Amino acid sequence: MRPRGIAILGSTGSIGTATLRVIARHADEFRVVALTAFGNATLLGEQADSTDPRYVGIVTPGGDADRAWATGAECLIEAATRPDVDVVVNAVVGAAGLQATLAALRAGKRVALANKESLVIGGEFVLRACHEGGGEIVPVDSEHSAIMQCIGARPESEISRLILTASGGPFREWDAERIAQATVQDALNHPTWTMGRKITVDSATLANKALEVIEAHYLFDVPYDRIDVVVHPQSIIHSFVEFVDGSVLAQLGFPTMELPILYALTHPGRVADAPARRFDPAAASPLTFEPVDVERFPSLALGIQAGRSGGVAPAVFNGANEQAVCLFLAGAIGFPDVPRAIESALAALSGLPAESIDDVAAADGAARAHVVELFR
Amino acid sequence: MRPRGIAILGSTGSIGTATLRVIARHADEFRVVALTAFGNATLLGEQADSTDPRYVGIVTPGGDADRAWATGAECLIEAATRPDVDVVVNAVVGAAGLQATLAALRAGKRVALANKESLVIGGEFVLRACHEGGGEIVPVDSEHSAIMQCIGARPESEISRLILTASGGPFREWDAERIAQATVQDALNHPTWTMGRKITVDSATLANKALEVIEAHYLFDVPYDRIDVVVHPQSIIHSFVEFVDGSVLAQLGFPTMELPILYALTHPGRVADAPARRFDPAAASPLTFEPVDVERFPSLALGIQAGRSGGVAPAVFNGANEQAVCLFLAGAIGFPDVPRAIESALAALSGLPAESIDDVAAADGAARAHVVELFR
Repeated sequence: MRPRGIAILGSTGSIGTATLRVIARHADEFRVVALTAFGNATLLGEQADSTDPRYVGIVTPGGDADRAWATGAECLIEAATRPDVDVVVNAVVGAAGLQATLAALRAGKRVALANKESLVIGGEFVLRACHEGGGEIVPVDSEHSAIMQCIGARPESEISRLILTASGGPFREWDAERIAQATVQDALNHPTWTMGRKITVDSATLANKALEVIEAHYLFDVPYDRIDVVVHPQSIIHSFVEFVDGSVLAQLGFPTMELPILYALTHPGRVADAPARRFDPAAASPLTFEPVDVERFPSLALGIQAGRSGGVAPAVFNGANEQAVCLFLAGAIGFPDVPRAIESALAALSGLPAESIDDVAAADGAARAHVVELFR
Repeated sequence: MRPRGIAILGSTGSIGTATLRVIARHADEFRVVALTAFGNATLLGEQADSTDPRYVGIVTPGGDADRAWATGAECLIEAATRPDVDVVVNAVVGAAGLQATLAALRAGKRVALANKESLVIGGEFVLRACHEGGGEIVPVDSEHSAIMQCIGARPESEISRLILTASGGPFREWDAERIAQATVQDALNHPTWTMGRKITVDSATLANKALEVIEAHYLFDVPYDRIDVVVHPQSIIHSFVEFVDGSVLAQLGFPTMELPILYALTHPGRVADAPARRFDPAAASPLTFEPVDVERFPSLALGIQAGRSGGVAPAVFNGANEQAVCLFLAGAIGFPDVPRAIESALAALSGLPAESIDDVAAADGAARAHVVELFR
């Protein structure tokens, strides 16, 4: 059997580079066919040299002008829809990944989805594109990969509850006053996972977990009142699934993104792989769990409520959060301004129409503009 | 669809009574067709009155002579092979359950197997009877049920390791000198599970875990060097399965035998059921794990070694252990005499032939005789 063709969108980021490491260990199974990056031409060039893809694209070209690379945002779509691509690893950061997800699904591809914003913003539209195009969405997030693995071949009717685990982020034990003073450096100091900057801040506000709850709702067709979140500081159990008879399954292991990436490529099968650190229960002991404190982390409740509200609310939540995190990382606003911005945007914009993907894209833009305006 | 017909062998014991509670909650799915007990005629009579089975048998009849019950050891076989029985719950204690397991499998029944000695003593013969008769073995032990649930529909080739959890029993934190003085009362004081007397003592010596390792070897066709045991005092995680890509699944919940019993009846499906205590990670926190100390619990290593040796060794291990536990419960020998008896029997009898089920039954008998002789 020929190796499956892989397109990696966002290849120079944390998930993209991990995907390349995974594929390098399984050259008989997978071949890199297309690579795209946002703007890191140096690393993209190195990746292209070592994997020899048929297509390379960069959204914002800079130096290295002698390379014959595709340029501009449309390179994501081109890479995602090539006939020689079987699986699109969508590791684009933020809302920019949505159009590539839609295009890949319409083209009947498997989308290994690390871009959770695709489902958060485009939920119903993404599911429709998947259905109409004969595509397939396989999550790359460790939590959703865990849930998918726990469900296995079982029918949806047997699922009674999803329990997503959250590390609690760097401020888990901080009181509200101290959180109010948190610096960018504090927020980037994640206790268990090494990830990109934006998602690391989202882990500190717990906005990330709200995005994951919304994503889980769409991926597994489970209503919000049957999706719980529990804080699990060690990040060993990646999530739980409770079944109708009360039985609970969990997927676990020492934190590494390489396993969910590999599983997204091989699902529903598995291939032999040597994890960086083999699971050892005694070395992982103790595993602790505690309820989420929504008072100290208001972004979580705001996001879940946006999911329940539906319509443009998830897009407004996500757009406002992205813009606010951008301002926070730039030093322009404080940490508590992030949920404040989200709340303000949701209050102002949740009533916008949500009839089309253009409507939700417009709401996303409006939310960003609202946040910029709020702090001007 | 008519309710599935259930035969319960050993209905008055801990597993038997739990099975009756489970079936009472699911009268539309299951009907008690046959009940057998060893000697508790009073409770058996109450059970027969409330479930109205078509067949009732008692191995050792006492009072209540006006009941028209079948009597003697053959009642197990009669109950297990009735045409109106779909599932045989074999909850007989000890080696006496083997013939009923063989007969049920040869008759093409599903055997919900709580009698782990069937596989420990009769391993290859039981698997052959299952294959030839078109029967099915579904484990009732919480550990093996957990493993079966984690494996789900995945092929055996994807399993890399089984990790059975052990509570560690009441002597987990006792030093060797104190264990040497342990009384019957001490040994029956199990920290997390309420079970019958024999299996509770086996949990104190960890002989029970050795029996489970051997059982897992036969049930899941995994070699002994890929079956590990870890001590998990809270008994929340019922076992782990590691797959070839390094991913680990676990099944968990607050300890109750009713869930694995129900799942053994409904497998591979599930039916809605309200567990006595719904799983709550925060209420279960912390979960701890520690290596097994084989020095203080020699029965575990003796049993696993007997499994590896094969032939009659598992039958000798089990027979010697049953006899020694019987003597310990009667106050005739001390707690450290139990592994001592096992070791002596294995050294003396492991070379006996194992060509037939009669050979292993003879080895079982020889092991018991050896232990009786040892302490006379």
